[in-house]
Amino acid sequence: MREAPRIDEFAFIARYLSPLAAGEAGALGLADDAATLAPAPGCEFVLTKDAMVAGVHFLPDDPPGAIARKLLRVNLSDLAAKGARPRAYLLALMLPPTIDEAWLAAFTRGLAADQAAYGVTLIGGDTTATPGPLALSLTAIGEVAIGRAIRRPGARAGDAIVVSGTIGDGALGLLAARGDLSGLSAAHLAELTRRYRLPEPRTTLGPLLIGLARAGLDVSDGLLGDLGHLCDTGGVGAAVAADRVPLSPAVAAVLAADPVRLELVLTGGDDYELLFAVPAERTGELAAVAAACGVPLTPIGRFEAAPGIRVHDRAGRALTFGRLGYTHF
Amino acid sequence: MREAPRIDEFAFIARYLSPLAAGEAGALGLADDAATLAPAPGCEFVLTKDAMVAGVHFLPDDPPGAIARKLLRVNLSDLAAKGARPRAYLLALMLPPTIDEAWLAAFTRGLAADQAAYGVTLIGGDTTATPGPLALSLTAIGEVAIGRAIRRPGARAGDAIVVSGTIGDGALGLLAARGDLSGLSAAHLAELTRRYRLPEPRTTLGPLLIGLARAGLDVSDGLLGDLGHLCDTGGVGAAVAADRVPLSPAVAAVLAADPVRLELVLTGGDDYELLFAVPAERTGELAAVAAACGVPLTPIGRFEAAPGIRVHDRAGRALTFGRLGYTHF
Repeated sequence: MREAPRIDEFAFIARYLSPLAAGEAGALGLADDAATLAPAPGCEFVLTKDAMVAGVHFLPDDPPGAIARKLLRVNLSDLAAKGARPRAYLLALMLPPTIDEAWLAAFTRGLAADQAAYGVTLIGGDTTATPGPLALSLTAIGEVAIGRAIRRPGARAGDAIVVSGTIGDGALGLLAARGDLSGLSAAHLAELTRRYRLPEPRTTLGPLLIGLARAGLDVSDGLLGDLGHLCDTGGVGAAVAADRVPLSPAVAAVLAADPVRLELVLTGGDDYELLFAVPAERTGELAAVAAACGVPLTPIGRFEAAPGIRVHDRAGRALTFGRLGYTHF
Repeated sequence: MREAPRIDEFAFIARYLSPLAAGEAGALGLADDAATLAPAPGCEFVLTKDAMVAGVHFLPDDPPGAIARKLLRVNLSDLAAKGARPRAYLLALMLPPTIDEAWLAAFTRGLAADQAAYGVTLIGGDTTATPGPLALSLTAIGEVAIGRAIRRPGARAGDAIVVSGTIGDGALGLLAARGDLSGLSAAHLAELTRRYRLPEPRTTLGPLLIGLARAGLDVSDGLLGDLGHLCDTGGVGAAVAADRVPLSPAVAAVLAADPVRLELVLTGGDDYELLFAVPAERTGELAAVAAACGVPLTPIGRFEAAPGIRVHDRAGRALTFGRLGYTHF
């Protein structure tokens, strides 16, 4: 039932994975059954785990380094949404026979680049064979002051709905990567594809929101779907001004040519921006936070007492959509 | 590229997974992006992550509850090897279209049973679709007094090599489960199959070894292969008396009928027993430890200064084997 050895598991770990573990003594060079890790004084850990499967979450022929970085980044985005600083991660690689050493080398180079960019260290994991498809799972560990993590519940009627960065790039980027987006400049196509392949987790912004955001999450299932999660857990509703939703130039160009794409922009997911509730009287502080982390922050509406999500256009007309988000199966 | 919704992801989480998270407040009922967790005062975390794939690590038609319990148990075995008490885990489920709600219900019942047995709580994870095969990844978190975790390096020449429980049941159990083991009683076949499907992580023993074991690990890749890891990291060699290796009645019956199976017993893996180094002058303490946790402990040889592993039979004749363990690809 088990496959014959193809390339040596221990050599792969020693050559490609152990160097990624140099930053944490408790990782023991990945030469032990488990790692040890203690939070900094006054802190607790924030833990999250996301899985990705070839053909479901990425294209099988995507660059290996980009796959690695996206896997790490979607997890870091969850940490950022809770206000946690990234610290470490564990990685499971389920490798089909088509994966060769060159692929593994490129994959781990991608991890190395993002470890340096985000200050995290590999501390453990597992490598095993699969008949396919390639499957990956990553557990990310961040740190936050004890009891201060930002949670999903907590939004109150009257709070501003604030979102970071721009929305829609991920969903349109998937279309661009598949060649399903026509009539766009090469530069815009490349930019959207890049955003789909390499989301930018708001790890610098997240910790700055502690004490300011009353509730928050990261936008992975779609802006309106994830806003629904904030509403449901907070026992509130929301009104969103569609024309205030921040758009990149590439997404704006798509919508100018094809306004019906607005639904995909607002519900498509893979944005990995932070969406959070800010008390109305404190929205004046957002500019300083945005300046401190270099990430634009945009109020797009308001939480309201009445349940449900209402989206309106610039003229105040209600917009309705067939789906509010994405579920995985 | 993404599949159409099959059954509702959020309903599955709410109905089957959230109840498993009731024991840890920081799991937030699995209704958030991430969990928070702090170690008990004076403790640090021990973290490990193992993946399992249908057709590689278990048979696709194995009982779902047994698959769940094995996944949890192989991770708890890694924690036990480090002397850590189990605390919590995160779970990634990559589900092919063939998995239905009845399968998921049975799978989560298995988790619930082992959560009660081992005192761990689900705190997070991910559920996603895959075209197949079923793939699972679990990150287990244990606690240990800061700096006291048992590690692989540390064995010294003269230390006794001690192993818990019995060896060979997992490897022969795989043959039994596949119907590839003939001439054995139905009771022995059933017992070996059970041991393969449901290893017994030595979670009670592990913490008792802190301060007694100079080095240790769990036997997952095969007794001699894992002994090799202890030797390599410790800069020592080992002499093993094959006739002292503890065997269950079922494994003893197999060897009586077919002595050539000894190689598989000593190298086959899937034992999930603890293998550790004890200073020679303290082996007298082993009986009390074994009594305290109800797990037999057996000295099977001695670490030596000369590198390499030497196995001898009752008459002192050297035994040689073609392979010392299992690598995953």
